[in-house]
Amino acid sequence: MIIDCHGHFTTAPPALGQWRERQIGGDRVSPDDLHITDDEIRAAIEGGQLKLQRERGTDVTLFSPGAGKMAHHYGDERTSLDWSRVSNDLIARVCALFPGRFVGVCQLPQSPGDALPTSIRNSVAELERCVEELGFVGCLLNPDPSDGYWQAPPLTDRAYYPLYEKLVELDVPAMIHVAMSRNPALQGTCAHYLNGDTAVFMQLCMSDLFADFPTLKLILPHGGGAVPYHWGRYRGFMLDQGRPPLEEAVLNNVFFDTCVYHKRGLELLLDVIPAANVLFASEMIGAVRSVDPETGRRFDDTKYVLDGIGTVDEAVYGANALRVFGRLEGALK
Amino acid sequence: MIIDCHGHFTTAPPALGQWRERQIGGDRVSPDDLHITDDEIRAAIEGGQLKLQRERGTDVTLFSPGAGKMAHHYGDERTSLDWSRVSNDLIARVCALFPGRFVGVCQLPQSPGDALPTSIRNSVAELERCVEELGFVGCLLNPDPSDGYWQAPPLTDRAYYPLYEKLVELDVPAMIHVAMSRNPALQGTCAHYLNGDTAVFMQLCMSDLFADFPTLKLILPHGGGAVPYHWGRYRGFMLDQGRPPLEEAVLNNVFFDTCVYHKRGLELLLDVIPAANVLFASEMIGAVRSVDPETGRRFDDTKYVLDGIGTVDEAVYGANALRVFGRLEGALK
Repeated sequence: MIIDCHGHFTTAPPALGQWRERQIGGDRVSPDDLHITDDEIRAAIEGGQLKLQRERGTDVTLFSPGAGKMAHHYGDERTSLDWSRVSNDLIARVCALFPGRFVGVCQLPQSPGDALPTSIRNSVAELERCVEELGFVGCLLNPDPSDGYWQAPPLTDRAYYPLYEKLVELDVPAMIHVAMSRNPALQGTCAHYLNGDTAVFMQLCMSDLFADFPTLKLILPHGGGAVPYHWGRYRGFMLDQGRPPLEEAVLNNVFFDTCVYHKRGLELLLDVIPAANVLFASEMIGAVRSVDPETGRRFDDTKYVLDGIGTVDEAVYGANALRVFGRLEGALK
Repeated sequence: MIIDCHGHFTTAPPALGQWRERQIGGDRVSPDDLHITDDEIRAAIEGGQLKLQRERGTDVTLFSPGAGKMAHHYGDERTSLDWSRVSNDLIARVCALFPGRFVGVCQLPQSPGDALPTSIRNSVAELERCVEELGFVGCLLNPDPSDGYWQAPPLTDRAYYPLYEKLVELDVPAMIHVAMSRNPALQGTCAHYLNGDTAVFMQLCMSDLFADFPTLKLILPHGGGAVPYHWGRYRGFMLDQGRPPLEEAVLNNVFFDTCVYHKRGLELLLDVIPAANVLFASEMIGAVRSVDPETGRRFDDTKYVLDGIGTVDEAVYGANALRVFGRLEGALK
């Protein structure tokens, strides 16, 4: 079974965006005010993600709301809570309409600044709702709810511990994923996204989070940002600091996806990171949508490139995801 | 001739740090108040950078003040100006004591926030002083003078244009280099440094800066952050946006150094980026100081690793630096 662990509902029907615009505009719009028909959802998926699944020969996509659109800096805790609910409920409908093809990963109602503790409490509740009631198998966790100004403490701060306790209890992992950047110095998909991955890897290297949560599992998307390319720098840093080796400090708990959009990059990822820590993913219809003139395939067709490498451990395509997403096998039954 | 284009005076005599501590503490300490003897400088260099140059067989290091220690967020414009002068003057003394071994690259007196325009004017004057009077051949340019909170406009903003005009007029390049991070979410050398490189690459991709300054040359250190590893993502982004290909948009003006501390990373850099755009560098006695147990050499001994790759274009070691640093050949006479 080929499992794409990183997909967002980037093709959601326009009513979702209109709901959000009203909310951002200042209306206290209710999640019940979103009206999208099953046919609209089918049209969005059948012409988009499902079509690409079939063309590429992938089986399942772990599917979450649009990451950039989480935009946690808007409004207050209630803004983020309502927006998370409406977004996650829509994902649940996709999963119900296409069983076996899409499994839910939820957005959390995070908020920056003083709202952090409340928003983590809300996130715990929303995570529990999505996993227990909607059958989701993971969540997205934003390390920068200020959306480009890095105003939050590191993810290793104890403020986040209630969330980690719940993740461990439910046996679901978090994919670390920043949302949009509203900072003109930091472009979103090709700077802030990758920088978020890199920043969090260092937060984890410098902390003992996994001593406190030995079974917590975190996924760094986008091939881990800059991390595999600079693996020697990180190995050296750990030695300089008298910290344990990376294998011991992070590789029992941290996983990298394959959203690296060229063959040389994917080869490096697979050479440097143990196969057991790599999860197949494409983020299809996401950050980069063009066709690569060098391959004639879309840049996000990572399966095509991985297949071409030829030496990829089979577990990367599916078995690793089943191991990291502890509830996935049950969700697919 | 083997030219290391990226070295900082990380081993400066303690009096420099003491001067800075007094300044940060609130004293209006004068650059003339720094007292370091030639013997102290010789000791710092002979047992450090010069020793490694000899051991590794490199000839020249382009030498700048400690990058993290630039710490532009402290104080006001005058704070940064005095600190830059005292730091640059010390570099000039190193270069005078070891002619042919060290050539100066200056720190600029940048400041964040409202002080930006004044600090750019001051930077233009300090750059001119360093190049015309001290024989320096380049500068460090910090894209985040707030030191970890990304409060400045992108480097493509017109606020920076007076600096670019002077760089072009003097025929000297800028190495893009953030300073310290005071943000607990962003570790300095292994997160903020790399994120700065990645962020600026995207600023350049999205702008027409090089249409306005076709001969401006910028160096992205640390192997370009995440950029070569994600080269496909950037190629795809440019297609998505209807922008020119990377070769045309940035590769006439942007260069990557070889501060990547493992063989697989350096191989990727050299496979992906044209050899004409890669400059040998080690950042020795810098971010990572340990010995790599896999090679028995220090992580920052990039020459050893590059030599082992065997297929590296000879120009990477020196000729490219002579081309990018237009005044370097003259400075070495």
